[in-house]
Amino acid sequence: MKALILEELTWVELNKYINDVKVALVPTGSYEQHGPNTTFATDTVRAYEIAKMLGEKYGSDALICPPVGYGISPHHMKFPGTITLRPDTYISILMDIAWSLKQHGINKILYLTGHGGNRFALGTAITKIKMEYNIDAYWSGVGSGVVKDLLDEKNCSKIRGHACEAETSQSWYLAPWLVKEEALEKGKIKKESKYKDKGIVKDGGVYWDFYEVSENGALGDSTKASIELGKEITDLVIERLCEMIDKIIL
Amino acid sequence: MKALILEELTWVELNKYINDVKVALVPTGSYEQHGPNTTFATDTVRAYEIAKMLGEKYGSDALICPPVGYGISPHHMKFPGTITLRPDTYISILMDIAWSLKQHGINKILYLTGHGGNRFALGTAITKIKMEYNIDAYWSGVGSGVVKDLLDEKNCSKIRGHACEAETSQSWYLAPWLVKEEALEKGKIKKESKYKDKGIVKDGGVYWDFYEVSENGALGDSTKASIELGKEITDLVIERLCEMIDKIIL
Amino acid sequence: MKALILEELTWVELNKYINDVKVALVPTGSYEQHGPNTTFATDTVRAYEIAKMLGEKYGSDALICPPVGYGISPHHMKFPGTITLRPDTYISILMDIAWSLKQHGINKILYLTGHGGNRFALGTAITKIKMEYNIDAYWSGVGSGVVKDLLDEKNCSKIRGHACEAETSQSWYLAPWLVKEEALEKGKIKKESKYKDKGIVKDGGVYWDFYEVSENGALGDSTKASIELGKEITDLVIERLCEMIDKIIL
Amino acid sequence: MKALILEELTWVELNKYINDVKVALVPTGSYEQHGPNTTFATDTVRAYEIAKMLGEKYGSDALICPPVGYGISPHHMKFPGTITLRPDTYISILMDIAWSLKQHGINKILYLTGHGGNRFALGTAITKIKMEYNIDAYWSGVGSGVVKDLLDEKNCSKIRGHACEAETSQSWYLAPWLVKEEALEKGKIKKESKYKDKGIVKDGGVYWDFYEVSENGALGDSTKASIELGKEITDLVIERLCEMIDKIIL
Amino acid sequence: MKALILEELTWVELNKYINDVKVALVPTGSYEQHGPNTTFATDTVRAYEIAKMLGEKYGSDALICPPVGYGISPHHMKFPGTITLRPDTYISILMDIAWSLKQHGINKILYLTGHGGNRFALGTAITKIKMEYNIDAYWSGVGSGVVKDLLDEKNCSKIRGHACEAETSQSWYLAPWLVKEEALEKGKIKKESKYKDKGIVKDGGVYWDFYEVSENGALGDSTKASIELGKEITDLVIERLCEMIDKIIL
Amino acid sequence: MKALILEELTWVELNKYINDVKVALVPTGSYEQHGPNTTFATDTVRAYEIAKMLGEKYGSDALICPPVGYGISPHHMKFPGTITLRPDTYISILMDIAWSLKQHGINKILYLTGHGGNRFALGTAITKIKMEYNIDAYWSGVGSGVVKDLLDEKNCSKIRGHACEAETSQSWYLAPWLVKEEALEKGKIKKESKYKDKGIVKDGGVYWDFYEVSENGALGDSTKASIELGKEITDLVIERLCEMIDKIIL
Repeated sequence: MKALILEELTWVELNKYINDVKVALVPTGSYEQHGPNTTFATDTVRAYEIAKMLGEKYGSDALICPPVGYGISPHHMKFPGTITLRPDTYISILMDIAWSLKQHGINKILYLTGHGGNRFALGTAITKIKMEYNIDAYWSGVGSGVVKDLLDEKNCSKIRGHACEAETSQSWYLAPWLVKEEALEKGKIKKESKYKDKGIVKDGGVYWDFYEVSENGALGDSTKASIELGKEITDLVIERLCEMIDKIIL
Repeated sequence: MKALILEELTWVELNKYINDVKVALVPTGSYEQHGPNTTFATDTVRAYEIAKMLGEKYGSDALICPPVGYGISPHHMKFPGTITLRPDTYISILMDIAWSLKQHGINKILYLTGHGGNRFALGTAITKIKMEYNIDAYWSGVGSGVVKDLLDEKNCSKIRGHACEAETSQSWYLAPWLVKEEALEKGKIKKESKYKDKGIVKDGGVYWDFYEVSENGALGDSTKASIELGKEITDLVIERLCEMIDKIIL
Repeated sequence: MKALILEELTWVELNKYINDVKVALVPTGSYEQHGPNTTFATDTVRAYEIAKMLGEKYGSDALICPPVGYGISPHHMKFPGTITLRPDTYISILMDIAWSLKQHGINKILYLTGHGGNRFALGTAITKIKMEYNIDAYWSGVGSGVVKDLLDEKNCSKIRGHACEAETSQSWYLAPWLVKEEALEKGKIKKESKYKDKGIVKDGGVYWDFYEVSENGALGDSTKASIELGKEITDLVIERLCEMIDKIIL
Repeated sequence: MKALILEELTWVELNKYINDVKVALVPTGSYEQHGPNTTFATDTVRAYEIAKMLGEKYGSDALICPPVGYGISPHHMKFPGTITLRPDTYISILMDIAWSLKQHGINKILYLTGHGGNRFALGTAITKIKMEYNIDAYWSGVGSGVVKDLLDEKNCSKIRGHACEAETSQSWYLAPWLVKEEALEKGKIKKESKYKDKGIVKDGGVYWDFYEVSENGALGDSTKASIELGKEITDLVIERLCEMIDKIIL
Repeated sequence: MKALILEELTWVELNKYINDVKVALVPTGSYEQHGPNTTFATDTVRAYEIAKMLGEKYGSDALICPPVGYGISPHHMKFPGTITLRPDTYISILMDIAWSLKQHGINKILYLTGHGGNRFALGTAITKIKMEYNIDAYWSGVGSGVVKDLLDEKNCSKIRGHACEAETSQSWYLAPWLVKEEALEKGKIKKESKYKDKGIVKDGGVYWDFYEVSENGALGDSTKASIELGKEITDLVIERLCEMIDKIIL
Repeated sequence: MKALILEELTWVELNKYINDVKVALVPTGSYEQHGPNTTFATDTVRAYEIAKMLGEKYGSDALICPPVGYGISPHHMKFPGTITLRPDTYISILMDIAWSLKQHGINKILYLTGHGGNRFALGTAITKIKMEYNIDAYWSGVGSGVVKDLLDEKNCSKIRGHACEAETSQSWYLAPWLVKEEALEKGKIKKESKYKDKGIVKDGGVYWDFYEVSENGALGDSTKASIELGKEITDLVIERLCEMIDKIIL
């Protein structure tokens, strides 16, 4: 099926399908450092690519919106080039998009985040969207968090997630230009890192500065990344997101 | 050791210990319905009791602050009596407490929530607290989320958390007046409930209205609650929170 | 009559009376220093106790809400342990409670403050509550400001209000654990205090730092406090608040 | 002495005196109905005239700022022409003026309000100004509230304040064009008015809609107004404000 | 025709015409330095005078509101006496006035600014007013920007606008007390001024500090100012604003 | 020279050049309808392409940031698919990017907008950025507004700007996929359009709903568009922006 990608349509084209749309998919990520491995665009581009793939599966059932590129990355600010929004700004963007979509008759929205640092703000946003606009909003990751079981099975690094072999693999598969193949480097975790603190949280959260965790800004071991692993991760992510979307648009 | 409980002290008394304080514990909860089983104060009182118990373990290392009672409960508004804050309001309270504590030389704060609905706002708050005040803030649950393994082992209900046997047991142990022993009732889960949607989220979130999930406002089966289970849960929660606090104040 | 105290009820219990409720009483105070005389909880606990007493008089006519404990205390920040909200935060809490109560059909709210420092914010809040939610909101003190005539008659200290004999007496009567009987001390007013400025305001206000007024954080002379005086004050406060509530719920 | 009136000066002129300035006087009022008696500008013009008179007494010690004309008048909105700010807007204006004055080395500000409806917002503003900018801010009324004893002595109407004989007299004395001499009319108080509610508040506040109190928008009896009474009121107001300012700039 | 000037009316008087009103004119300006030439009130008074002149042409078709005096002048803060609002504050005032007018049935508003520094905030405000209140709002300058062709023809200074001969002339004609005839001085433009930067913007904007442009705070050459030029400018401004208003109220 | 495009770099790569950066270029646009002619991405993509071209000219002097894609488009909401931010949200994004860049030592920012509807918010943003962060911010258009003289000379349509031949030509030249060659259509201007109102504003602004102006959402006549015209426009835009940037980074 042909995906309904807002960036590629005119309003006249969209107009033919607008009443079919059951859910809008809004990709979101960050422009933050990803070690020497992948570029600042990693999270946003991965999320958008996943959204487009879903768009091909759902055709006019799903409107694929342009990505909300800038995200919440204060914990990466010590690495030059990282740009962060304040949580309130980020939440407002998500709300405004929801409000706008509702004007066009779309009342269900799934935000797809390529960046874990957005999760608390996403959770706060969907509460506000429901309270203020009465729109059903959902959010999901698009990477390692969705397929923990697979990554465990593949013996991926324990401390993983950011610029690790899983994320680098997925980037490679989805958008090879994001990956600096010749520069791939294992995460240089600091021994005395506060990151251990996060490890002890059973049900809660800790604010931690990434530079205190990893000297090169990466976790895991991206030298083990491969396009094949990227495909495997992505296939399973798509499968699981489809299950979710099927229920949402029921 | 004697707990340093702000509500019970004068400033003259506190003044002797204020320079010893390594972390402030701020309990928080909600005033939302808990089925026919426990009262509107359930979450807040449980969190405060846990905080006081921790206070006894840490003495002048930990300042036990009064609870932030009102929480984020829009999903319970269909049940009469529930009172909710907007997320922004709730986050501002947590920020102001952090700012105030910093004026007195306290730079580490652990928020202890008896209410899962606060978690996204807590996560957003600790980000803002770090960005705006440069204070290290942490948060943790105090109930079933902290001891999932124990509850699985005990064969507690699968769909659990709110007004279930675990929470009711913990309430019974910590503050018996919260529990309406004669009225305990199993959660009346609606068959066609949207709750299944939550089940399919691997790594993300869904806003859901509690009344669409449970007719009587409860999950699990509180008729299976007991003071003994409450003690067991609480002992393990305390043990795990102590591990966390030990690392925080290191 | 049995008071309708939200903290002590389940929604099932409240549900029987919710349509009878004519007004909600929302106690509020502060967690600020009260000299060597009474604890940080003084204002909040006094207000809540008064609210419960009123609850016994009004039964299902009045819903007694949990207290808004944290208040506006920037002028006490020089005394360790004091925690203050920003005015905007405090006002938002009052608004959210009003909004929530309206969802349950309650359109009249009386805020009862045990802390004078909240008064301007209370006045601002009721204006916003009316403008934005069209709810009739009222506020009142619960202590010396309500019974000035009695205190004059009793020859109470001229510079009084905070941690003075009147407040200490009322605390003693309402919640003896608030009072440090062995530590009661007269207010150590600074001779060159800016407080005189407040004295010259006929119709207006002055921001003043409490530490510049009183070295030990107290006004008046709490060594003259007694349970008897506390009862007398409280009886008259209750009488006058009943007159007010009678008119509100007419 | 020559008053330092910002509106009438160039920066080159002001520059000669700016370092002498000990306090800024900022008049404020409202553009709200005043019955058939006086115009929408009544409160603002009265406050400005009083400020200028004070300016003549203090010369380069006091900078007379232009008035903050629009005020808080939601309770007069049922009368056509009334314009109100939201409390947050009004408070922000007062804060911005304070911040600006501080840039020029002025750290003491006295707001002079011709409108009682601004009082809670003024009180909230001076707290915020102190907390955020560390500026000493004060506020005072300029009319009947400052000289209650005189008005009692003169047997002025009991229910007075807005568009009553005292205010009309003061307007007449200060700015005759505000007064519609041929249209002066006694306040048409509604018998079943909610205003009685306000009467029962010993220490607190009530939001009330002016139209429910007075059919023609006036209180008291402006047919008894006179320039002589206006002068007497104003002389005493000036005397008392001078006492206040003397202490502020000490 | 008699102008409908809010400041000069009682509600009883306005009431006769309120249903005729087709548009409200809201003058706005600033209290910022204008070199040695004219006073801090220059922008606000000019705008108000123009509004009143328009009021005489439109009678009960146009309600002339009191001016929003304080404006956006951070770029003049280096000159003592200048007072600025934050843009958000200023925008909120414009919004509140619009909201209030709508309560009285007025749905078209023309803001008339005597100060160019308000323009971006005015543009932002009319967008918000439309989005949030669905009111048709417009704004226009009242001075040199409206009559560029005339000023070119008259060979006015190239770098003009603020405290130049055109503005000084208009002030002289409209409100002679604004002009310090004996002190008129040519603008002392700094040679290395950043102002040139503004010159290169074809379609955009630059923030610039006025003190870096002109040593005495003036542009152009006010020694060439005259009442005659002021009249000529004003006549053409009025003519063009009438054309605009005619279309607005059509 | 090689452009410094954030999206394409890792932090390790950027790190070599970060201290050379003299200005950050931040493209911004909208996701709003552009008639049957070009897609929702038109404004954002054009701005980003222009920014990249400038990046090639300035090398490590200029950091090319990812685009702020969503913009201010309430006036296009009647056309399905348009998504708008509220002005405050948009301004906050621009501010957060500026704040982040400053953390990395970059103190000059040029926002490049492909969408005229952002201009007032851009102007407001650069004022706030200067006031709050003391960063020198500038903004410029990238299209027809920058080269009015050329378009006049080419006899382009008088009512132009949005989805006209100039914009369509520029899109064609910069990113052909934006243009629906087979669907190009002249703007269907409504005869009785309010747009004439905009025509009469000499120095000011009008909020207008695009649907009331043009039935198909376009202005001008895109059937006259050509790649050649697009190149000519773009060459001149680049030339003029280079002049501007040269002065900014001097």
